[in-house]
Amino acid sequence: MTQDTTPDIDLALFGALGDLALRKLYTALYHLDRDGLLGASTRILGLARQDIDAEAFRQRVQQALKKHVKTALLEKTCLERFIARLDYLQLDFATVEGYDAIARWRKDVERPMTVYLAVPASIYGDICRNLSASGSLDEQTRVVVEKPIGYDLESSRQINDAIGEAFPESRIYRIDHYLGKETVQNLIALRFANPLFGNQWNQNQISHVEITVAEQVGIEGRWGYFDKAGQLRDMVQNHLLQLLCLIAMDPPSNLDADAIRDEKVKVLKALKPFTQETIGRDVVRGQYIAGSINGESVPGYLEEEGANTESRTETFVAMKTEVSNWRWAGVPFYLRTGKRMPEKLSQIVIHFRQQPHYIFDPDQRDLAANKLIIRLQPEEGIALQVLTKDGGLDKGMRLRPGPLHLDFNSAFPKSRIPDAYERLLLEVMKGQQYLFVRRDEVEYAWRWCDQLIEGWKARDMPPRRYPAGSWGPVASIAMITQDGRSWYEDY
Amino acid sequence: MTQDTTPDIDLALFGALGDLALRKLYTALYHLDRDGLLGASTRILGLARQDIDAEAFRQRVQQALKKHVKTALLEKTCLERFIARLDYLQLDFATVEGYDAIARWRKDVERPMTVYLAVPASIYGDICRNLSASGSLDEQTRVVVEKPIGYDLESSRQINDAIGEAFPESRIYRIDHYLGKETVQNLIALRFANPLFGNQWNQNQISHVEITVAEQVGIEGRWGYFDKAGQLRDMVQNHLLQLLCLIAMDPPSNLDADAIRDEKVKVLKALKPFTQETIGRDVVRGQYIAGSINGESVPGYLEEEGANTESRTETFVAMKTEVSNWRWAGVPFYLRTGKRMPEKLSQIVIHFRQQPHYIFDPDQRDLAANKLIIRLQPEEGIALQVLTKDGGLDKGMRLRPGPLHLDFNSAFPKSRIPDAYERLLLEVMKGQQYLFVRRDEVEYAWRWCDQLIEGWKARDMPPRRYPAGSWGPVASIAMITQDGRSWYEDY
Repeated sequence: MTQDTTPDIDLALFGALGDLALRKLYTALYHLDRDGLLGASTRILGLARQDIDAEAFRQRVQQALKKHVKTALLEKTCLERFIARLDYLQLDFATVEGYDAIARWRKDVERPMTVYLAVPASIYGDICRNLSASGSLDEQTRVVVEKPIGYDLESSRQINDAIGEAFPESRIYRIDHYLGKETVQNLIALRFANPLFGNQWNQNQISHVEITVAEQVGIEGRWGYFDKAGQLRDMVQNHLLQLLCLIAMDPPSNLDADAIRDEKVKVLKALKPFTQETIGRDVVRGQYIAGSINGESVPGYLEEEGANTESRTETFVAMKTEVSNWRWAGVPFYLRTGKRMPEKLSQIVIHFRQQPHYIFDPDQRDLAANKLIIRLQPEEGIALQVLTKDGGLDKGMRLRPGPLHLDFNSAFPKSRIPDAYERLLLEVMKGQQYLFVRRDEVEYAWRWCDQLIEGWKARDMPPRRYPAGSWGPVASIAMITQDGRSWYEDY
Repeated sequence: MTQDTTPDIDLALFGALGDLALRKLYTALYHLDRDGLLGASTRILGLARQDIDAEAFRQRVQQALKKHVKTALLEKTCLERFIARLDYLQLDFATVEGYDAIARWRKDVERPMTVYLAVPASIYGDICRNLSASGSLDEQTRVVVEKPIGYDLESSRQINDAIGEAFPESRIYRIDHYLGKETVQNLIALRFANPLFGNQWNQNQISHVEITVAEQVGIEGRWGYFDKAGQLRDMVQNHLLQLLCLIAMDPPSNLDADAIRDEKVKVLKALKPFTQETIGRDVVRGQYIAGSINGESVPGYLEEEGANTESRTETFVAMKTEVSNWRWAGVPFYLRTGKRMPEKLSQIVIHFRQQPHYIFDPDQRDLAANKLIIRLQPEEGIALQVLTKDGGLDKGMRLRPGPLHLDFNSAFPKSRIPDAYERLLLEVMKGQQYLFVRRDEVEYAWRWCDQLIEGWKARDMPPRRYPAGSWGPVASIAMITQDGRSWYEDY
């Protein structure tokens, strides 16, 4: 965890004209460059199927930056420096011909290469094989891959095997961009550097945990792709389980990547599997029907462009699960995620237990549970909800819940919280893996999800309907209400 | 703890032209009136030796209000309403003649009377006796008295006996104005309504506690009076021990005055007495010499007007003590208070223990102890110091201490935190005693102080010198430093 200057690398970016690259990656790399966090000689080679030349590629990148970087931050000298790092190689990823150009680009260069696969997982295998066969790789080359890693345990194994033939695990960086968020790092600091919280991070002091990842968007033109997956595979298997791991993991002995990931895997292994009985009681699948968001009508899932009107794929899932270990036994983890929710919101709420005895206004007893609210979207932040005396002499000893805010912006004088991709790219360049997902994490997460999907199949129940713009099927509210709790609403 | 309207009372204010009345009491009463917190028919009778009439008295009060109330809050209708409540009685407190005018003032009035003794304790006895003898009291009359209640256990007993002959304990309101502060009420809420803090409020989780009450002022023309007392009697016996009680007390079963005061008394009884050995090691007496404050030269204590140059009276005292019970055994309470300090500052710092293992930058290990900082002066507020990730991508996992602020001002839309006297007067009118000091509290506090003073006498050591404008004798720094700690400085 040293604060050295970033090493120089060569970045070979597959899918250089794809959506992820144009929307996120160049922007992140540009910001790193602007902040002095790119190695001075770092170069970027865009690879894509399109037959354009390097100059046209640079134009495309420049356009993307103008779209996604704040104008005030697009300084001419910095932009020129960044653009000069770019080169382009037209390539058919599926065939080995042409890959030797990568070695030519790298000729006489000592620095390590990072291969970024911003392409569908279905072609990871081809690319890795062709990189190997063309002699483009050496003992230092790293590879960065994006979710989804497969569709179930079996397919994820095939993908990981294919990558594993070209790269050892120690040089594979599987991105879950939630792990790059400032708040996630602060969650680690909060848990492991603050005894006030660390001491109470267990079933004795915590009553339950809520994780919500709500999307306001719907399918966004990828109906066919999404319909094969569903919300569980699309969001729970990766983002929600990663967040759950960070909250639930035992403290690692140190901050080494494997020390942390060993603890995360222990959580995934301890996740309680669902039975036919608990699936019926503790899991709610939903699918949105037509509704309105911000006063605008939106179509239902089965009315979207390209939709198969018979589909039973879930666009929402809520569940109550448990981590069966000494720290968490008996503490429900309520997860929910859905599309077409009223707002975009990713948030974790740690509900501390109520105290057994309450000496203030008895009507307020329900207030007397501290909450730690960890927000990832739309804005990032952490707040602690405590009870304080209601101001004013006329209130007697009436209390009110008030947040103690951890103000991230004051930590960033420029008032810009770095995007997750900036942090993740920087960590790749530094060769630090602790914010990336290890193969066994992916596989244990799939194992748990697969078992749930099997259970759904056996029950053969259609998803419950919910109107777009609502917080999901009524049953998802009932699921938590019957435990005498509710989804946290105020921030 | 109901939020009823304030009952009507008749307030008989002895010492009506004294400093406390003119500076604090009318201002507090006016603010209560303005906020609708005085009973509509509540009346105030000023009593003093000066031969003026009611109209002149009202003029004097009005002048005082103009000096001490913010102009924006001095509304004409409200001011007129308040002034109309005032009456005046010229009285020689020492002789019973004239007291019967009080009964005449009260003729045909049903509401209870409160007698406020804003006069030196030496005449409490006379006043109480004359009030009784003149038939001014009934079964409902309350009495409010101010510190100092005596000079030692013996003299405090005499004073309390004298008051006790006229009033039962349930109608005696001994003011320690520190107890009227908003922050003190919030400390109670924080401890007893927030399991996050309440669960950790003991020797397992707290390493030590600091209480600082620093005055910037010197003797302010009352050298002769102060020199007989010294800082221990003037500040520790009341304010510092009261704060210590509120921090250290076990949770009361309810908020009844006696439930709370029983717990406070238990703390006072458990305060570890000093021995000749521990007095030498754990207590530092100081006396200021000439120095400068805010760039201005100020004289030493022995050079003040009226000073006896031989005096060994302390103007500063620091000590390390302990509450010998199950909750606090082994947790030092470091107290310090002095005159002519660099700033006016009353603050409690709860230092939570460090965690046994630290996984972040090892250089930062010392930061990793949470602190709760409770400020009473100059501004009121509570802040929790936690460690968060240092912002910025280039900092790796470097942490920084940052405060979580409890913002009182947002609880007071008018941006005015009520003065302690407003709250205390209101509680008297409502007949609620929990913010007032019970006789046994006074006496146990004196018992503990007396034993320390005896120890000092036996040692016969002069106080250590410290320059005005410093934080006290070097020995008071050394006392805490030798425990590997330091007085908390940043807020």
